[in-house]
Amino acid sequence: MTGHVFIATSLDGYIARPDGDIGWLLARDDPQEDHGYDAFIADKDAIVMGRGSYEKVATFDTWPYDRPVLVLSRQLAGTPVPDRLRGKVRFADLAPLDAMRALEQDGARRVYVDGGQVVQAFLRAGLIEDMVITTVPVLIGAGRRLFGELPGDRDLALVASRSFPSGLVQSTYRVLP
Amino acid sequence: MTGHVFIATSLDGYIARPDGDIGWLLARDDPQEDHGYDAFIADKDAIVMGRGSYEKVATFDTWPYDRPVLVLSRQLAGTPVPDRLRGKVRFADLAPLDAMRALEQDGARRVYVDGGQVVQAFLRAGLIEDMVITTVPVLIGAGRRLFGELPGDRDLALVASRSFPSGLVQSTYRVLP
Repeated sequence: MTGHVFIATSLDGYIARPDGDIGWLLARDDPQEDHGYDAFIADKDAIVMGRGSYEKVATFDTWPYDRPVLVLSRQLAGTPVPDRLRGKVRFADLAPLDAMRALEQDGARRVYVDGGQVVQAFLRAGLIEDMVITTVPVLIGAGRRLFGELPGDRDLALVASRSFPSGLVQSTYRVLP
Repeated sequence: MTGHVFIATSLDGYIARPDGDIGWLLARDDPQEDHGYDAFIADKDAIVMGRGSYEKVATFDTWPYDRPVLVLSRQLAGTPVPDRLRGKVRFADLAPLDAMRALEQDGARRVYVDGGQVVQAFLRAGLIEDMVITTVPVLIGAGRRLFGELPGDRDLALVASRSFPSGLVQSTYRVLP
């Protein structure tokens, strides 16, 4: 069981504004460019995210995921999943390792880990194998951070880095043991 | 008069640990690689930094700068410059624009702006033209941040991005008006 991150951040390290807004990010997404999400998700079996990410995605007109989604949230756990998402989404209040074990029982091996708080918790638990970080050329000055506190340094190995005409820089890191 | 940044940061956005330590950075510097500092400094006329950067550099065996250095610090302003740095360093308690005007009177045109607090203040004042950001492949979890609060978004244009065998990713951004 391994966790894998694919996420975009402002140059100053934010994945969303303080209120969760990602309009600044969507406005800078050039649909002509292939940023590799389809290739990334192709070999993932499930998706784990937090309430913040779930509630943002749930406002979209169409549910964008074709993999089972596990939403880790104390607040949502035990509440009913909306009708249109039944069979696609589960809510649970689980620590990272327990979440991975639950997904493993469903046959998952490679898990897409999304959202700032969840990425941070999985990094602290040593459950992230690699991260694709796409840096958007803007400073937004405040917001929800991609990274947080750690019990110690996490050494990374750069696997690849590329840039796009839109100004995105996408770097792939392996988390070293 | 334009300000220019050339700085290294951990992937999680820190330029130093909470106590100012940069050993994690120096340990990951491959002296076989040319990260472009000499080319960067070649067309700069002066250097502005804060007390944190100055006090770190002042502990080095040799003073590394061959450009006039202006240290912006309320605490150091009015205190004597150490003998070995006389003629190389000045202390002053100046806001960014006033600092630029003082350097302009000395004939400076292009200024290297260094250190987290000073870079942040010059960005807020709209005095930074471009930034060379070198990202070190490590998460350190806490420390002194490169970027801080801003009065509004700062749009950037990616000028170039390259990576090194050591895993550094160096991206050059122009700050858009």
